[in-house]
Amino acid sequence: MNEFEIIKNFFSKLSLNNKSSLSLNDDVFFDKSKKMVISVDTYIEGVHFINFKKPENVIKKIIRSSISDIICKGVKPKYYFISGSGNSKSFSKTNLRKISKSLNEEQKKYKIQLCGGDTTKSKVLSFTIVSLGFSKKIVYRNKAKLHDDIYVTGNLGDSFMGLEVLKKKINLNKRLKNYFEKKYYLPNLQLDFTNKLLDFANTSIDISDGLFEDLKKLINKQKLSFKIYLNQIPISKNLKNFIFLKRLKKISFISRGDDYQILFTASPSKSRIINKTAKSLGVKITKIGKICNYSTKSQILDEKLMKIDPKHQGYSHRF
Amino acid sequence: MNEFEIIKNFFSKLSLNNKSSLSLNDDVFFDKSKKMVISVDTYIEGVHFINFKKPENVIKKIIRSSISDIICKGVKPKYYFISGSGNSKSFSKTNLRKISKSLNEEQKKYKIQLCGGDTTKSKVLSFTIVSLGFSKKIVYRNKAKLHDDIYVTGNLGDSFMGLEVLKKKINLNKRLKNYFEKKYYLPNLQLDFTNKLLDFANTSIDISDGLFEDLKKLINKQKLSFKIYLNQIPISKNLKNFIFLKRLKKISFISRGDDYQILFTASPSKSRIINKTAKSLGVKITKIGKICNYSTKSQILDEKLMKIDPKHQGYSHRF
Repeated sequence: MNEFEIIKNFFSKLSLNNKSSLSLNDDVFFDKSKKMVISVDTYIEGVHFINFKKPENVIKKIIRSSISDIICKGVKPKYYFISGSGNSKSFSKTNLRKISKSLNEEQKKYKIQLCGGDTTKSKVLSFTIVSLGFSKKIVYRNKAKLHDDIYVTGNLGDSFMGLEVLKKKINLNKRLKNYFEKKYYLPNLQLDFTNKLLDFANTSIDISDGLFEDLKKLINKQKLSFKIYLNQIPISKNLKNFIFLKRLKKISFISRGDDYQILFTASPSKSRIINKTAKSLGVKITKIGKICNYSTKSQILDEKLMKIDPKHQGYSHRF
Repeated sequence: MNEFEIIKNFFSKLSLNNKSSLSLNDDVFFDKSKKMVISVDTYIEGVHFINFKKPENVIKKIIRSSISDIICKGVKPKYYFISGSGNSKSFSKTNLRKISKSLNEEQKKYKIQLCGGDTTKSKVLSFTIVSLGFSKKIVYRNKAKLHDDIYVTGNLGDSFMGLEVLKKKINLNKRLKNYFEKKYYLPNLQLDFTNKLLDFANTSIDISDGLFEDLKKLINKQKLSFKIYLNQIPISKNLKNFIFLKRLKKISFISRGDDYQILFTASPSKSRIINKTAKSLGVKITKIGKICNYSTKSQILDEKLMKIDPKHQGYSHRF
């Protein structure tokens, strides 16, 4: 069973009387009367981060991953809790100093405040982050409309490249290594852009599991499908050059997750205001596809508008 | 370093501008303007619970341990999140059914609602529970007044006996085994009593680490001390009989933690209303000591009002 099935089969009934839970099928919990948005996520060493050799990077990544759930809903995060479990090596004085310093930097960058947490002993290092924001409105999942344009912020794929570098699966020069590693650990969240989403987005999600995985989740309760144009998916110059030089396929890089960019849909009539907002805030926003009728199967189209075999949608790749 | 030192040295400065964090020195976070009370706790197999052979008991215990933090502040919990990390054996279909059933029973008993959470893979089984309640006021720590009476709800020590039974450190007949095990797994929280605390308690905490440990924490920023009368500390008939038959010392049983009873102080002038409230709600409330001047050292006095050596305050015990 995957997480989705576990929730559906065992837990969704527990939230039946609780509208704010959004049927446990959104990035967040949203209590409309209290205007409160909450996200809870757990990060395990060896699963969500490779190791704890650079606590400063891991801490920043998990904080950003957590508040990304709030930000992609059109809401600025305000508070966070951190609960860490690990051994005395993980929580040595040196590491605690680095953790504290990193949290302080994230607090300043994203204007968030530490509220509490917990520290416990465990053989496996893990962190649970709770993030809170306050807003009258949020952008929900499963509210796409037929013929909506599909947009994404920033670039995709750089974070996956960073992970491959860290796993020593690809070798690059120092400059590129640093570039991709930084993209993996320090995703650039769209804090200034988030509130604008409420003006034009019908539905949204952050890309953590991969573009196509998250696009499917975004409309998993709707009788709709999507069409994505591969050549419109935004990637960085560095990734473009790498793919070109190694004669690899773009499709293998753009849906591997950890991007923490915002994926949203909007009516075509909003196209101008979206472009204007993007320009004024200096945020890269790219139209990458359309929401289509349920009778058409979801499609990814290549440069020649040929359908791409789903087998190559993300998880198969060779260097 | 213990948890207290870690917070003091590395994290309290991160919450300096955030009054709601209560300097990270209370059971909860309390945002007065949002009237919101939050508690975050992590529970690890082998540390906070022995094993997962009876998921239904473990789940109930950790839910109660979490909402106990809210209840001891005079607030009814409303929402909770649960994030579980473990292997596929821990989260087998049978176990998931038991987890779901237990949560459902706790939801009914304590009128709480599931809001969300997370499930992740890990070699070590752990849960993080986030509990939320809403209230204009809470009872804080470190607000005891000189000459306050010290009260405790329910009985102490039964839960520790249950743990010893589960660890097979003591052998009892089946009836007593069941009695103490149940007290360990299913502490009886004072849900109906909680709101009343706001009427008379000056300061409060729940007893999770042990009576004396928690009493020290309760007034750790105040220039005050305490005097506790051992013979007034409430214990069950079953524990009393056990201690008598085995010729053991009461002091070895009443400060071992996991009681999840409420420890609070109140002005002597509130004595009548406290007794009246206790009677009308059918809640056992016992006066066990006094808040004293800082110049006197904190004391535990036995039946003959002789000071008890701190060595025997809780952590030493022999059967």
